[in-house]
Amino acid sequence: MNRDKPSASRVIRFSEFRWAGVEPAAYKEPSADWSAVTRQILVGPEEQVPFHLRYFEIEPGGHTSYERHAHQHVVVALRGAGEVRLGDRWEPVGYGDLVYVAPNEPHQFRAGADEPFGFLCIVQADRDRPIPL
Amino acid sequence: MNRDKPSASRVIRFSEFRWAGVEPAAYKEPSADWSAVTRQILVGPEEQVPFHLRYFEIEPGGHTSYERHAHQHVVVALRGAGEVRLGDRWEPVGYGDLVYVAPNEPHQFRAGADEPFGFLCIVQADRDRPIPL
Repeated sequence: MNRDKPSASRVIRFSEFRWAGVEPAAYKEPSADWSAVTRQILVGPEEQVPFHLRYFEIEPGGHTSYERHAHQHVVVALRGAGEVRLGDRWEPVGYGDLVYVAPNEPHQFRAGADEPFGFLCIVQADRDRPIPL
Repeated sequence: MNRDKPSASRVIRFSEFRWAGVEPAAYKEPSADWSAVTRQILVGPEEQVPFHLRYFEIEPGGHTSYERHAHQHVVVALRGAGEVRLGDRWEPVGYGDLVYVAPNEPHQFRAGADEPFGFLCIVQADRDRPIPL
């Protein structure tokens, strides 16, 4: 793909929680505030789309950063089950459940002890940086 | 939800290709150019998010309109299998596959004869109207 022209229409094949041509990467720079999370950017800056689609996967026992930001998250769970912290409460999240994280809501995701927890996450392309809590 | 203030963070439960509190509606006004398609708006104008998330489901034998528009589509297949037409070619789409539809690409989705075909579709909130082809 090329930043100078829009990407061509295409089908990106899925198999075992990987998409063709997409490499899983670390969730963020190494830090004590998260553990055992990978990120696949399915639609990102190269596509020149005003939103980005990522797939995050948390290994059993792992968790994302506890953080907040002004941009919203829309999440759809695709693998296993886990929990989301929204402010002061933790809620279970199972297959297909949608999570809406409102602007500046402190939030965190974690997997259970026995299975990975994977989810799609949609954000606007132009967004602020997360603030760790 | 209320258009005057942002929506609260929440988990929207999934069960049998329905989401709690979301009613399936017709895909579009009745027309000869599509058949047997329903739409669920999972994240729409009420959420004041700069992108919208919809779930479309096509009954066996049904299809969406053949159309184009300047805004892009990002689709993730969630139920059954079907096909997408991208310009002159038809491609199979199976579970988890991602479809990127570029600006102004003529496109159409159809289900096979034996099972429904359901997919998530993400679009920008501020978008142009489709042009039937």
